[in-house]
Amino acid sequence: MEQLRGNAAVGQSGGPTAAINATLAGVIRGAMECDGIGKLYGARNGIEGVLARRFLDLSGMTEENLRLLENTPAAALGSCRKKLPPDFDGEHRILYEEIFSVFREYDIRYFFYIGGNDSMDTVAKLSRFAAETGYDMRIIGVPKTIDNDLMGTDHTPGFGSAAKYIATTMQEILRDTAVYTVKAVTIVEIMGRDAGWLTAAAALPSLYADVAPDLVYLPEVPFDFDTFYEDVEGAFLRHPNVVVAVSEGVRTADGRYVGEGTQSGAADAFGHKYLAGTAKALEYAVRERFGCKVRSIELNLPQRCASHLASKTDLEESVKIGRAAVQHASSGETGRMMVFVRGTGKRYEAEIDSADIAGIANAVRKVPREWISERGNGVTEECLSYIAPLVEGQPELLYEGGLPKHFSFDL
Amino acid sequence: MEQLRGNAAVGQSGGPTAAINATLAGVIRGAMECDGIGKLYGARNGIEGVLARRFLDLSGMTEENLRLLENTPAAALGSCRKKLPPDFDGEHRILYEEIFSVFREYDIRYFFYIGGNDSMDTVAKLSRFAAETGYDMRIIGVPKTIDNDLMGTDHTPGFGSAAKYIATTMQEILRDTAVYTVKAVTIVEIMGRDAGWLTAAAALPSLYADVAPDLVYLPEVPFDFDTFYEDVEGAFLRHPNVVVAVSEGVRTADGRYVGEGTQSGAADAFGHKYLAGTAKALEYAVRERFGCKVRSIELNLPQRCASHLASKTDLEESVKIGRAAVQHASSGETGRMMVFVRGTGKRYEAEIDSADIAGIANAVRKVPREWISERGNGVTEECLSYIAPLVEGQPELLYEGGLPKHFSFDL
Repeated sequence: MEQLRGNAAVGQSGGPTAAINATLAGVIRGAMECDGIGKLYGARNGIEGVLARRFLDLSGMTEENLRLLENTPAAALGSCRKKLPPDFDGEHRILYEEIFSVFREYDIRYFFYIGGNDSMDTVAKLSRFAAETGYDMRIIGVPKTIDNDLMGTDHTPGFGSAAKYIATTMQEILRDTAVYTVKAVTIVEIMGRDAGWLTAAAALPSLYADVAPDLVYLPEVPFDFDTFYEDVEGAFLRHPNVVVAVSEGVRTADGRYVGEGTQSGAADAFGHKYLAGTAKALEYAVRERFGCKVRSIELNLPQRCASHLASKTDLEESVKIGRAAVQHASSGETGRMMVFVRGTGKRYEAEIDSADIAGIANAVRKVPREWISERGNGVTEECLSYIAPLVEGQPELLYEGGLPKHFSFDL
Repeated sequence: MEQLRGNAAVGQSGGPTAAINATLAGVIRGAMECDGIGKLYGARNGIEGVLARRFLDLSGMTEENLRLLENTPAAALGSCRKKLPPDFDGEHRILYEEIFSVFREYDIRYFFYIGGNDSMDTVAKLSRFAAETGYDMRIIGVPKTIDNDLMGTDHTPGFGSAAKYIATTMQEILRDTAVYTVKAVTIVEIMGRDAGWLTAAAALPSLYADVAPDLVYLPEVPFDFDTFYEDVEGAFLRHPNVVVAVSEGVRTADGRYVGEGTQSGAADAFGHKYLAGTAKALEYAVRERFGCKVRSIELNLPQRCASHLASKTDLEESVKIGRAAVQHASSGETGRMMVFVRGTGKRYEAEIDSADIAGIANAVRKVPREWISERGNGVTEECLSYIAPLVEGQPELLYEGGLPKHFSFDL
């Protein structure tokens, strides 16, 4: 088969991670090695940048800048949250035609989209449109999400680094909360609206250290307040400092988010209803029930952008999967998402492959029920063994004045 | 002068830091080298452990464990928040007599107390009581507080590591918040009830990177909402993603905490008044005023216990000041606090000395007004030059399974 010749474009989409720039660096490396690809354009703010013709020429990036880029958090090209219309009919068609007129104008024959669920949806639609209109083009999705909830892949780039941040921070919080002798409960809220992978990572210290969160609640199991109170009481029998890891997405059996529960009575000075957040809601509940000292901690943005604490395994794999995306496109694939396939041996190994994007977009991969304790307040050793290799290794960072050096296209 | 011979005790008190165990390791190293000291007892939970005779024998710690201890956050011996009675009269005297009866029983002639303001108060009182009762003893305070607000010392052990965590995390948050093009304000709340040293550290990235928080508010300057709104408007003229660093301790001109302001109208499902926190309060205010996307982030406990991101300078100095405490005691000093004296040369250097504890306890060292911008929404380069050397250097950590290894006396 003759190789398709033309330019390439790459974009980043969805929420930032500590590894999405490593994948971008992988795509850049791959494109430089690929004979069929002329220029590589970086689209600012994902598909929005394509529409607005806001492109950077990435073809000549230096090795030094690529290394810095790999260790820079968030999305160096900028991101967006744009969802494309569901079909190509009527007015919906206009946007697709605009995108492809830009592709034609810049002779873009390769498009790599690094993102989560919504971005894979974009890849699926664009590749269908290309096929329908007979524009010869290769469109490949490269996954990234700290949530680890994409179908079809063993895990997602970005998850390992977020999991490492959560496990490390949890271990430090456990040391911190253990110093006093007074009864206290600390509740740590972790990202993950629908899947509990990140919250499960909070239990990783139990593999190596003498500390671990007492209770771990994932969104996969309905949250029950009475069970929770009993769990806390049981933990108090072991020690005075009880630490709880909870997913932001836990819901009661009626489907309501726990964080919603407390909002009814709460309003701020402006009369706004106040969505307290899951940990805050549990903080109130525990204080009411036990009358003890309670603190809630929301790990918030740092859990997705803490590149100073990235997993070397995650970053290396993220570069590889970006590079592999170019190779798969170059060999003729389109409308596919790159995936990791874990080896079955005892030592962790992951190979890279691609999968049909249909059936991946718009679906959520959850933590299997059998990896969660029967009572729903912890995770099994099998679950931790799955996560453990993904957080291994520390990247070598460059520092300036004690702060990690980042790369920026705006410098 | 003949050297005082006897046993020694060491305790940790107040809030955890990433460096307080490094100081403990320094005291242990110092005691091992000191001829006059027989056994070194570690008191669990500070002065409470002395009263309860809960001692660990620290004399024989291995080099390997000392190294691990230096890189372990929080207080390995446990901590307390006990304040001793104000005088030695009547019933108040009983507690002091109990403490000294334990000192006599264990032949403790040296006592090292690692802590903040309240702990220095304890050191002052115990040394006065020893003098009054003619018990020959050396009592030395070793400072630790992330707040950097102790008088008499250039800076405090623990501050550099917390400042490094805050600056690094702020830099990552700045990358994260910059990825979208929609108008948004992110408000980051930083510890420091009375002094703004830690919040000032949030501006450190401006020394090296192309990102910095737009606005920085310290408790040293009264907070004014109208000025704040103008500041945010001004920042929006430069870019859509405005990032604010604010101290938990900022107050309006009438002395009320900004975090207090919003509590009046707020109550949770249980009818409790809800203290929103400073960032949360500003989040409401900004949303009400600008109608844009707003997020508040409380850095919370990790800023004081993130030893994975400790400053090497801070940890090394913390070991040294602990060791020096033993040497000063051994040479006859008592009732003193160890301090850092910064050299006047261009290259950062700090010598260790001791200072009379009277006048140190119960006072707060604030950020000088001239180190804060006239408008009160930023810090000067001189302020950042003061902080910068304290965050330098990365300690070599031991890892297991990708997580930092910690030391624990309970293993």
